[in-house]
Amino acid sequence: MKIVIVGGGAAGTRAAIEIRKRDRNSEILIINEKNYREYSPCGMPFVLSGDVKNFEALQTLDKKFYEKMKIGLILGKKVKNIDFQNKKVMYENTEMYYDKLILATGSYAFVPPIEGVDSEKIIVFKNIDDAKKIHEKMKRIKKAVVIGAGLVGLETAYAFVKNNINVTVVEMLDRVLPVMLDKDMAEIVKKHLENKGIKSYLNEKVLEIGKKVRTDTREIECDLVVISSGVRANTDLAKKLGIETNYGIKVNERMETNVKDVYACGDCVECTDFITGNPIMSQLATTAVRQAKVLAENITGKEAKFGPVLNTSITELFGLEIGSTGLIAERAEKEGIKVLTGKYRGKTKPEYMERKDIIVKILADEEGTILGSQIIGKALVGRMDAMCLAILNKMNVKNLANIEYCYAPPVSQEFEPMYLACDIAAKKLR
Amino acid sequence: MKIVIVGGGAAGTRAAIEIRKRDRNSEILIINEKNYREYSPCGMPFVLSGDVKNFEALQTLDKKFYEKMKIGLILGKKVKNIDFQNKKVMYENTEMYYDKLILATGSYAFVPPIEGVDSEKIIVFKNIDDAKKIHEKMKRIKKAVVIGAGLVGLETAYAFVKNNINVTVVEMLDRVLPVMLDKDMAEIVKKHLENKGIKSYLNEKVLEIGKKVRTDTREIECDLVVISSGVRANTDLAKKLGIETNYGIKVNERMETNVKDVYACGDCVECTDFITGNPIMSQLATTAVRQAKVLAENITGKEAKFGPVLNTSITELFGLEIGSTGLIAERAEKEGIKVLTGKYRGKTKPEYMERKDIIVKILADEEGTILGSQIIGKALVGRMDAMCLAILNKMNVKNLANIEYCYAPPVSQEFEPMYLACDIAAKKLR
Repeated sequence: MKIVIVGGGAAGTRAAIEIRKRDRNSEILIINEKNYREYSPCGMPFVLSGDVKNFEALQTLDKKFYEKMKIGLILGKKVKNIDFQNKKVMYENTEMYYDKLILATGSYAFVPPIEGVDSEKIIVFKNIDDAKKIHEKMKRIKKAVVIGAGLVGLETAYAFVKNNINVTVVEMLDRVLPVMLDKDMAEIVKKHLENKGIKSYLNEKVLEIGKKVRTDTREIECDLVVISSGVRANTDLAKKLGIETNYGIKVNERMETNVKDVYACGDCVECTDFITGNPIMSQLATTAVRQAKVLAENITGKEAKFGPVLNTSITELFGLEIGSTGLIAERAEKEGIKVLTGKYRGKTKPEYMERKDIIVKILADEEGTILGSQIIGKALVGRMDAMCLAILNKMNVKNLANIEYCYAPPVSQEFEPMYLACDIAAKKLR
Repeated sequence: MKIVIVGGGAAGTRAAIEIRKRDRNSEILIINEKNYREYSPCGMPFVLSGDVKNFEALQTLDKKFYEKMKIGLILGKKVKNIDFQNKKVMYENTEMYYDKLILATGSYAFVPPIEGVDSEKIIVFKNIDDAKKIHEKMKRIKKAVVIGAGLVGLETAYAFVKNNINVTVVEMLDRVLPVMLDKDMAEIVKKHLENKGIKSYLNEKVLEIGKKVRTDTREIECDLVVISSGVRANTDLAKKLGIETNYGIKVNERMETNVKDVYACGDCVECTDFITGNPIMSQLATTAVRQAKVLAENITGKEAKFGPVLNTSITELFGLEIGSTGLIAERAEKEGIKVLTGKYRGKTKPEYMERKDIIVKILADEEGTILGSQIIGKALVGRMDAMCLAILNKMNVKNLANIEYCYAPPVSQEFEPMYLACDIAAKKLR
């Protein structure tokens, strides 16, 4: 069997690896438009900040790994056409037969309509080439503006501060991390960032970038503008070929498109929202690798399903961890879902130990079924995963309010903050 | 209504608080045999180690708090008898009427049959008086032996090392933390402790304590012996009064004993094992406070149930966190449950970030239902809680192997170690 993968990012590369783990014999080939192997895009801001020593470190799979895994890699070639009838992928002057095809075409950066957006002082931050340009410029500049207060925008702003560069973030919406957080929680992050030297202007649209950045409210001087306003699914090829798309490429639970023997995974694919059942994008590395695994199972003759997502995400900015899973208030409102909330502000450990702040917010429906959780503080990794499991199991805040958890003074509180927040939400049920 | 609580530890005190939160008017009275208010016993080893400044810090509720909550407190009085017919509690020359009675009589230290166990150089470590004695002695001694490699034993050994005291742990069973860990996982902890200066002799019984500690294998010189060999439920009063007991006081889901209007909670109470349905003790602070809440709901006319337990527990020793929830191999074997396991040894973060080791072991039944999890590493708090939720929801390792989780390079790996361990277990299902 010959498996051709269009796209060599996290999704495409992981699909290749997962297939190889299950199938020693098939030919596996990745065709990547970019001229480089897979790297960790999530790590880019941390190279900029100096937390990671260089960009090469982000390329965790070396050439030998591909050779050892017998994964063919064609770099710098763009697939122009695919003949589904004859099962042929076309790039440059080459035609290549496939038995199974995987579209892992990823995403591109969304660029808001701003005058002067093609100016030299602007970098749209999406891939490692962009990151390298920012890295280069960082050595010479004093003031930067970041457009977009999403994860990457804030992580990039953090990197500027770490390089002693004055930075301002401009966000069109009314809060930072607008996809992850409700306004009350976002306000806490905003203040934390302010304390660390990141100014952010919210509810503000950038209109023009000339000598200065002109928003609908003010002008901001700067030497560099980084645009980080989210990503969109790369569906050009799919659309051209008549593959069904919506926000992204449509796939079934087996990661199959509507065309026989054509699969898709990663940023280019549309997911289903666990809470609402509606289509939603989930352009996370974790989603890509989980989809790749499901796809590999199905391609190699086993059975697996990719389920609806909660878009569980996390970051750390200046030592403060910020996590989110499931529904946030804004989306609940849009979907017409009435929610009740519970918010607990407390500490990570008993008062006699050295400890940090932790703030947990829980969203539940009117019956108490937990729908979402946002946490800001310390030691969040497992906590976000616990909240994710609670939502996926459709647990009730009443039940969670008195559920079992672990405690020891050096690591946690006698009362778990997640469940105290559930308790507060549960009280509103009565 | 008059509510009398026998016992002023975590369980009794929490019961009082939770009842008061729900009932402003009833009279609430705690009768405590000890001459002091509630403190955090879990914090004691960390006062000894110097992580907590003094013992007073462990008493997180001050006198004013009891006054403000209108919780009466009688200290240093032992309840000798209770007349269930006339609903009277008797102590010294006093008889006191109750409407509802709560037994929170706690536990006592188990002392193994050792010759010379009443010697001056021995301290049985259970309560704060014992801790203070150890604290006092620590200033003068050079060599200590701890009998028992459970949580408190190892935490005490840690405290000795922090005070530059040579320490040896002697454990009768074949591993450290025998209630929490399987042998392979315990071995990792043992080595870690060795590197930090704690010697431990396993499979070794202490026979006699004289000038030296004599085990069935060797003699060990020392200036102080701390016995920390587990606790047993304090059921003397209950038994004397004809209340049903087994390992501990028997209660139903509402925390009621077999006697009308008599409840019980905390270390003196027997629980049900979630996995096997058999009676099990759960002498954890978290169990006590969760039971207190259920009890308070029921006493104040609401409905709540206390469910079966997993005995989720955790500690940190020299920066290494150790957690456990649910079934361990030894108990599975005793119960005749065949288990399959998955063990993942990896890192907490991507290779380009500063990171620590993490080792996850998963136990599942032959259908793949997760039954237990042991983790050693960093950032375990939420992870243990996630594993606890997975078990309580009877999730399958096959499902967990590809479940959603959070990832960002500064805080976690692209692949979550918990679920990688589940994946390894799931592969054994095929």
